[in-house]
Amino acid sequence: MKLNSIRKPFAGIALLALLAGCQTTPEALHGTGDLGVIVERATGSLAVVDTSQRQILDQVKGLGDLSHASVKFSRDMRYAFVFGRDGGLSKVDLLTGEITARVMQSGNSIGGAISQDGRLVAVANYEPGGVKIFGSEDLEFVADIPATWIDEKGREQRSKVVGLVDAPGNRFVYSLFDAGEIHLVDMNGEAPELTRFTEVGKNPYDALIDPSGRYYIAGLFGEDGLALLDLWHTDAGIQRILPDYGRGEERLPVYKMPHLEGWAMAGNEAWLPAVGRHEVLIAATDDWSLTERIPVHGQPIFVMSRPDERQIWVSFAHPDNDVVQVIDSETRAIVATLSPGKAVLHMEFTPRGEHVWISARDSDRVTVYDTHTLEEITRLESESPSGIFFTHRAHRIGL
Amino acid sequence: MKLNSIRKPFAGIALLALLAGCQTTPEALHGTGDLGVIVERATGSLAVVDTSQRQILDQVKGLGDLSHASVKFSRDMRYAFVFGRDGGLSKVDLLTGEITARVMQSGNSIGGAISQDGRLVAVANYEPGGVKIFGSEDLEFVADIPATWIDEKGREQRSKVVGLVDAPGNRFVYSLFDAGEIHLVDMNGEAPELTRFTEVGKNPYDALIDPSGRYYIAGLFGEDGLALLDLWHTDAGIQRILPDYGRGEERLPVYKMPHLEGWAMAGNEAWLPAVGRHEVLIAATDDWSLTERIPVHGQPIFVMSRPDERQIWVSFAHPDNDVVQVIDSETRAIVATLSPGKAVLHMEFTPRGEHVWISARDSDRVTVYDTHTLEEITRLESESPSGIFFTHRAHRIGL
Repeated sequence: MKLNSIRKPFAGIALLALLAGCQTTPEALHGTGDLGVIVERATGSLAVVDTSQRQILDQVKGLGDLSHASVKFSRDMRYAFVFGRDGGLSKVDLLTGEITARVMQSGNSIGGAISQDGRLVAVANYEPGGVKIFGSEDLEFVADIPATWIDEKGREQRSKVVGLVDAPGNRFVYSLFDAGEIHLVDMNGEAPELTRFTEVGKNPYDALIDPSGRYYIAGLFGEDGLALLDLWHTDAGIQRILPDYGRGEERLPVYKMPHLEGWAMAGNEAWLPAVGRHEVLIAATDDWSLTERIPVHGQPIFVMSRPDERQIWVSFAHPDNDVVQVIDSETRAIVATLSPGKAVLHMEFTPRGEHVWISARDSDRVTVYDTHTLEEITRLESESPSGIFFTHRAHRIGL
Repeated sequence: MKLNSIRKPFAGIALLALLAGCQTTPEALHGTGDLGVIVERATGSLAVVDTSQRQILDQVKGLGDLSHASVKFSRDMRYAFVFGRDGGLSKVDLLTGEITARVMQSGNSIGGAISQDGRLVAVANYEPGGVKIFGSEDLEFVADIPATWIDEKGREQRSKVVGLVDAPGNRFVYSLFDAGEIHLVDMNGEAPELTRFTEVGKNPYDALIDPSGRYYIAGLFGEDGLALLDLWHTDAGIQRILPDYGRGEERLPVYKMPHLEGWAMAGNEAWLPAVGRHEVLIAATDDWSLTERIPVHGQPIFVMSRPDERQIWVSFAHPDNDVVQVIDSETRAIVATLSPGKAVLHMEFTPRGEHVWISARDSDRVTVYDTHTLEEITRLESESPSGIFFTHRAHRIGL
């Protein structure tokens, strides 16, 4: 037996397997419910992490351009689907660290989603604008759905696609940045069935779907307000909500448009990052009226609820991106101002919320906090860490 | 190498490992996010299932009396903790089918819970009445908390414990059936810190905690109404809600008290089984007022929301326990009346809700339905199946 013929399992696990002889030893096995990945954008690699031991288990290289990359997980939580900025779609085995499939499926892509049944992976592409759909088993090609629209002169154009999410019933929803449209694709039949919602607002730039998968909400770069699609009542079309949400008349300088995916839904309230202002906003989810503004440290980027909804964690845009603030969701008080490092890019809660992992790109580290004591538990070294994604997302609608 | 020295992995996987030689082969590995178990009460065994392939992978025997047994999962989703009725607590490795630890920790137990950080397993005991806490690694003993109370004559008594759940912050909450008390245990310090809430109502028999872990609600066998503890405001004590909930003045014949764990929380509404009446009730969760009664096929036992909250699935008590009904959560219409077999005991949705698995004890089968088409997808043979539990519960508060 040649040692180099062994596929790479976690460091240590391979040795145990060898010591134990020709057996599928229990030591060689590993649950996948407490795994996750850290995107290391500078090196185009993923660090595979264990949230129980709070350590890095493995590093996976060769994933291409991972700036602004995002990750989804297979329903068995064994595989990560990595959506690279360069159009690369990779399937990574978290247990062996292998890339089991990889396709260069476009020139420029921006995230993806997995169907409710776990069988389809959809990718949002800038160039050529559209959505491509692959089988989750081997990334075999399933469908190409160009994001076409008709411009004011009657010509067919293609648009960049953003804000792609999964919706219940093996559907995908996404927005066309250039067209100002939202498209809904139903993948239940033999061929994709497309429904177009036009004139939803100027330049939708990002979107979210609520945890039940009913409401799809797109942010607008070109005007104020948000576009809402109620997937229980698609006949009603698009509704405009929070008409003052955006940069307003003054066209404030905005360092970075906030992420919508990070919206916190706590009770009957949605907590969202103001655009360009040093404020976190609260809206009532029954009528989508703005009810409160909370002054914070900088321009918020991510506004995320701890899973028990008792705390709201906020990260900020440059030049305030070395700070994270924690808000008590009941009293609205800022209960902590933390310094996790330089250029904080992402936060990820453990599934039941006892810890949060925060990436600080320019400090080359990920800091883990206890969310009850608000104290630092440990730091992990990581080169230019950006997105952090844990496998529990596999079981949540829209994540 | 002796074949019988091999520990038992999934059928087929062992063979692949052997064929591949002395390697920790990728084929021998398995994700644990799509696993689950079916409790087979007649044989005291667990069937380990795969919800992607919709098949039984393994059977684990030797777990003692599993009537009314319940199951929790480790945070890595590899291990099941099985709470037997005979006081046996077993830790089962889902990947190998082995019982890795087992303690007979009382004479009669009724369920358990796992702490938020995954390190502690708590068991609710009838006899001797109290809660015992073990480490999740090896089931090593951690703490014994007798459920003591002072009766009307000033004597210290012990009570049966029911409705044990985990709450955020490594706390456990449970009810004392004989005492009419609710106890809260904080396991963050060196020793358990106990808070008692007395005179909560007569004979709490079961309880639930809402998905955010804020509200603990106990049903009362001895009187009407429910006892609510707001864990964000424990100083406020117990609040009585839904005063008419129960059997009422007429003391209706009740075939089986409904399960509270099955309450559906959808939007701002809680859907709950009426006691003794052929009705599903809807309450507003802001003021806990009763807003609607929906006539159904029989006395409801489980009233469960599909994860996207669009459907409510209802099972029934004897003699109507061969039927399951599906209610549209928006229109309140009954959209399907299904016949999954005789003596339906439990229903479990896949994590994102595309399927539901339903156990029919007296038909010796589990039926899997597509929740969108409401059509049967497959049947699995299982001897006297009762509870069905999927590993995604590991990541939900209170499940």
